[in-house]
Amino acid sequence: MSSPLADEPVEPAGDDAEPLDGDECADYLDELGDAWEVVDDHHLEASYEFPDFETALAFTNDVGALAEEEWHHPDISLSWGEVGVEMWSHEVGGLTEADFVMAARMDRLYADAGE
Amino acid sequence: MSSPLADEPVEPAGDDAEPLDGDECADYLDELGDAWEVVDDHHLEASYEFPDFETALAFTNDVGALAEEEWHHPDISLSWGEVGVEMWSHEVGGLTEADFVMAARMDRLYADAGE
Repeated sequence: MSSPLADEPVEPAGDDAEPLDGDECADYLDELGDAWEVVDDHHLEASYEFPDFETALAFTNDVGALAEEEWHHPDISLSWGEVGVEMWSHEVGGLTEADFVMAARMDRLYADAGE
Repeated sequence: MSSPLADEPVEPAGDDAEPLDGDECADYLDELGDAWEVVDDHHLEASYEFPDFETALAFTNDVGALAEEEWHHPDISLSWGEVGVEMWSHEVGGLTEADFVMAARMDRLYADAGE
């Protein structure tokens, strides 16, 4: 059960693009899992829960591999039983569709990790 | 160039131990690399720098493997070119020698990663 957004390409918006506004962010957020929230119409934050440190570290690697593949790098916080993610498009100083596609991909990785 | 502390065992202080006081923390801190600081005589924080995301992720895995091996788990923050570490001994609500030994081991892992 992951959003169709996860199947979209991660396309950089370009340096002269405008970040998404609040209404646009809200519409995209509706397509993500409960882990995610939009903060200050500026960035995305997620918290994913795990049963222990090892599984949280494995997910960190999944997210890291995705970040390298798509060349779109979030900040990740790893602690016992939890992985936090913070992400935005630095080139526009806010959120773009690429961030929401990345988020949907992480939701899918999380669902896969739990199977 | 790593501290002899890194060769000490990571021994849990036990639930009834007292956390190290400010002077004791300062003495141990002298044995660590520049990445580390003691915050509020309560926990250790470090920031390690890297040339990119991939090497930072690799170090996160090194620290994660150490944490699992010694069963002493820090909080780790991973971003492009930087890994942050925050650590204390939860069972005593502060710092113990085990935290400083772990910190010295991370300094050694960092030195090894740069070779």
